[in-house]
Amino acid sequence: MENQSRRAFFRAATVTLAAAAVPVSQAAESSPGTDPIAGGAFGAQLTPTPLPFDARRLNGLSEKLLQSHWENNYGGAVRALNAVRDRLSQALVDADTPPYVYNGLKREQLMRTGSVVLHELYFSNLGGSGVAGADLRTRVAASFKTFDAWETEFRKIGLGLGGGSGWVMLGYNRKLRLLENHWMADHATAPVDVAPLLVMDMYEHAFAMDYGAAAARYIDAFFNNIQWDAVAKRLEQGTVPVRG
Amino acid sequence: MENQSRRAFFRAATVTLAAAAVPVSQAAESSPGTDPIAGGAFGAQLTPTPLPFDARRLNGLSEKLLQSHWENNYGGAVRALNAVRDRLSQALVDADTPPYVYNGLKREQLMRTGSVVLHELYFSNLGGSGVAGADLRTRVAASFKTFDAWETEFRKIGLGLGGGSGWVMLGYNRKLRLLENHWMADHATAPVDVAPLLVMDMYEHAFAMDYGAAAARYIDAFFNNIQWDAVAKRLEQGTVPVRG
Amino acid sequence: MENQSRRAFFRAATVTLAAAAVPVSQAAESSPGTDPIAGGAFGAQLTPTPLPFDARRLNGLSEKLLQSHWENNYGGAVRALNAVRDRLSQALVDADTPPYVYNGLKREQLMRTGSVVLHELYFSNLGGSGVAGADLRTRVAASFKTFDAWETEFRKIGLGLGGGSGWVMLGYNRKLRLLENHWMADHATAPVDVAPLLVMDMYEHAFAMDYGAAAARYIDAFFNNIQWDAVAKRLEQGTVPVRG
Amino acid sequence: MENQSRRAFFRAATVTLAAAAVPVSQAAESSPGTDPIAGGAFGAQLTPTPLPFDARRLNGLSEKLLQSHWENNYGGAVRALNAVRDRLSQALVDADTPPYVYNGLKREQLMRTGSVVLHELYFSNLGGSGVAGADLRTRVAASFKTFDAWETEFRKIGLGLGGGSGWVMLGYNRKLRLLENHWMADHATAPVDVAPLLVMDMYEHAFAMDYGAAAARYIDAFFNNIQWDAVAKRLEQGTVPVRG
Repeated sequence: MENQSRRAFFRAATVTLAAAAVPVSQAAESSPGTDPIAGGAFGAQLTPTPLPFDARRLNGLSEKLLQSHWENNYGGAVRALNAVRDRLSQALVDADTPPYVYNGLKREQLMRTGSVVLHELYFSNLGGSGVAGADLRTRVAASFKTFDAWETEFRKIGLGLGGGSGWVMLGYNRKLRLLENHWMADHATAPVDVAPLLVMDMYEHAFAMDYGAAAARYIDAFFNNIQWDAVAKRLEQGTVPVRG
Repeated sequence: MENQSRRAFFRAATVTLAAAAVPVSQAAESSPGTDPIAGGAFGAQLTPTPLPFDARRLNGLSEKLLQSHWENNYGGAVRALNAVRDRLSQALVDADTPPYVYNGLKREQLMRTGSVVLHELYFSNLGGSGVAGADLRTRVAASFKTFDAWETEFRKIGLGLGGGSGWVMLGYNRKLRLLENHWMADHATAPVDVAPLLVMDMYEHAFAMDYGAAAARYIDAFFNNIQWDAVAKRLEQGTVPVRG
Repeated sequence: MENQSRRAFFRAATVTLAAAAVPVSQAAESSPGTDPIAGGAFGAQLTPTPLPFDARRLNGLSEKLLQSHWENNYGGAVRALNAVRDRLSQALVDADTPPYVYNGLKREQLMRTGSVVLHELYFSNLGGSGVAGADLRTRVAASFKTFDAWETEFRKIGLGLGGGSGWVMLGYNRKLRLLENHWMADHATAPVDVAPLLVMDMYEHAFAMDYGAAAARYIDAFFNNIQWDAVAKRLEQGTVPVRG
Repeated sequence: MENQSRRAFFRAATVTLAAAAVPVSQAAESSPGTDPIAGGAFGAQLTPTPLPFDARRLNGLSEKLLQSHWENNYGGAVRALNAVRDRLSQALVDADTPPYVYNGLKREQLMRTGSVVLHELYFSNLGGSGVAGADLRTRVAASFKTFDAWETEFRKIGLGLGGGSGWVMLGYNRKLRLLENHWMADHATAPVDVAPLLVMDMYEHAFAMDYGAAAARYIDAFFNNIQWDAVAKRLEQGTVPVRG
């Protein structure tokens, strides 16, 4: 898609979505009072959530890159997931589908769902000042000895993923009650029962347009744009002991 | 280890653990009032949680199998995780460790943490009657159209994993607000931000001693022993909207 | 399948296969003069290759275990691969199949093909005395400094995989001209352009029936039964420089 | 690295390498008469093989992209592999290294070796006219029914990988005697005992600088630059029956 038409599509999509009936994932953010299980295991069709910030205003991440990321990679994952869910609902009632063929689709579902969820978390923890509040720094330091030790590990994992694919996640392990950084090789490699607090996309589509192979410079840019308020809110919610 | 001595070890371990200071993961189950982040990101050393049922009383899963599973596979994961966390704390402060070497350890951490958490969930959702309550059946049916449709898919995923490794999980996706079954290829393949409700171990150590390669017969035995009350409790807790 | 009937099936299968028209994979071993590309990329249906040894005569690996391994795990992979290849030939001409759904089948094809090939290599390098010839020991020592150093690494990789799944392979990297041991997490994790010389199955179905979780004892048994002549022959063939 | 200095580095490296003592991997291409196992399993330090074509002359793949790909991604893999091999030689003689920690390094070795070998194959099958000879077309058609059917599948697998990571490979399965296309999720996902004939890099670093997220346009450009003579030569060599 040419730059000109891509931008047009992007704006149109944003408008359409804003006007649409509340999308599933947006609903999850905004209406806690309704029945929390909103959709069927197979039937629900997702619509993309708009970018929660103005793509022209990030510091060191270009509008072109962010638009392509949102439209092609995140948007593509939403479209693929809808198609896979549709195929699954057909395959489940077809007794001729062998289990290992069925699982080929389940793997795609896991992969695409991971991409949708992680991208929504990623965009939601961007668009900020990059400055963490004192309370949050203290909470993180309590687990990692110092806030700098946390940042050192988070960046190190990212550098090790540079040139390949994957994610870095700061998460709260609800079962073991630990705050930890996670290495994730792709959208389907993840820790179990962990509340995500901060995620950084290390797929090359997150930075190659702006930084080529210079992953370290992208990581700097990511840190400069972290929306720490979103992280603090997630931490507050994620640590409510849910297994007491 | 011979049968005789294995059994002795097992009983001793159970007693020791029961008498020990509250282990981290047990604490997570029992004392919600304390600071929910109990351990350091690297320092915390885990101790195994005892089996929550009498291994001699399960229907179709032998004491020998269950003991070996708890002691060797779950216990081994706890020991390995402690060692890996120890190495990570050393590697983080060693500036000579390249990021990709560091990530080799992070992958092991993810793998072993997944094994510890999934095994604890697995043992906790065994030891029951295998009969789901009416309320739970209704909740599950609301997502999967019928309770049978859910069970059909859950079993199908398991059959497709038979002869290899992996897990099947019924989980609640907090972000998308969906109840879904998940295919997981190993301890480190998992959905993001999902509350686990019911997990079935499909690694061959979960059944080969009793059933050889007959994975379908193991799945029958698993269903006959599901502790549905634990599942209902997890569902109740996991669906509290945490991102409102 | 009951022991009795399993044994009967096994013998019948052996007889049938021995009498059948030369199966594809057997042909590859025995008739180098014919056109080396024997089958279509999608059409070829494989038949299992019989065990190349008498399953009652291995030292420390029971007939029951070996029969189940051949019949259920290897045989199951052959059957699954045939079904997957069939589905692929249909999906390729169906323009409605999205690429990511198609790739779900391609992943299954890779996984099952790996299982078929690795199991054939595994059974072919069992049934021997466990004693490597002097020439072979010298070749291996030339790469690993000593033969013992090679064996130490090969066993160590196996121990690290114990309790999970995967393979250990001694292989010859044709591109880099190196003899190396490889860690492989499953049937689809493998080195590129490497001639396999010796493979050890670390999936639990290779030993759990005989050794439970005692992977180290299985590794001892494996070493006692290595057919080193097969390994020597593969090395001789695999090192012919093919890219000169 | 700035464009200017990157280009300077690239030219210097090319000159240096061309003048250096024959590097291991180049030797593998050019001197079949010597001992085929050139290096120790741990000791050998690899040097990058220069690009086999003039990066300014490809049709639709820019010099900037190709330089960055060679220097950062391929070059980075060579450097990382050398470091990992060094660490492995230390870890093997350290009895305190647990097998699962050792395997963390073995996984990195597999990943980086795959990256080195696949990138060398990739660059070697680029720089051509994109027109396959009649003989080769006939050989491929014999397996895939038509040459177009082959190309359709090869492109489809590539499209399915777009936006993520991985490789597409046309290879000859020496064991099953089949010519097949392979889906490979990353550098360590690969078929066993397969001679690689044509490989296409689908990591985003192979195209994002020139095409952004437009993977389909990159695949067109790749096909326009295939060096089919290299493929034909590999096929001729790879199909020599080596297991007769």
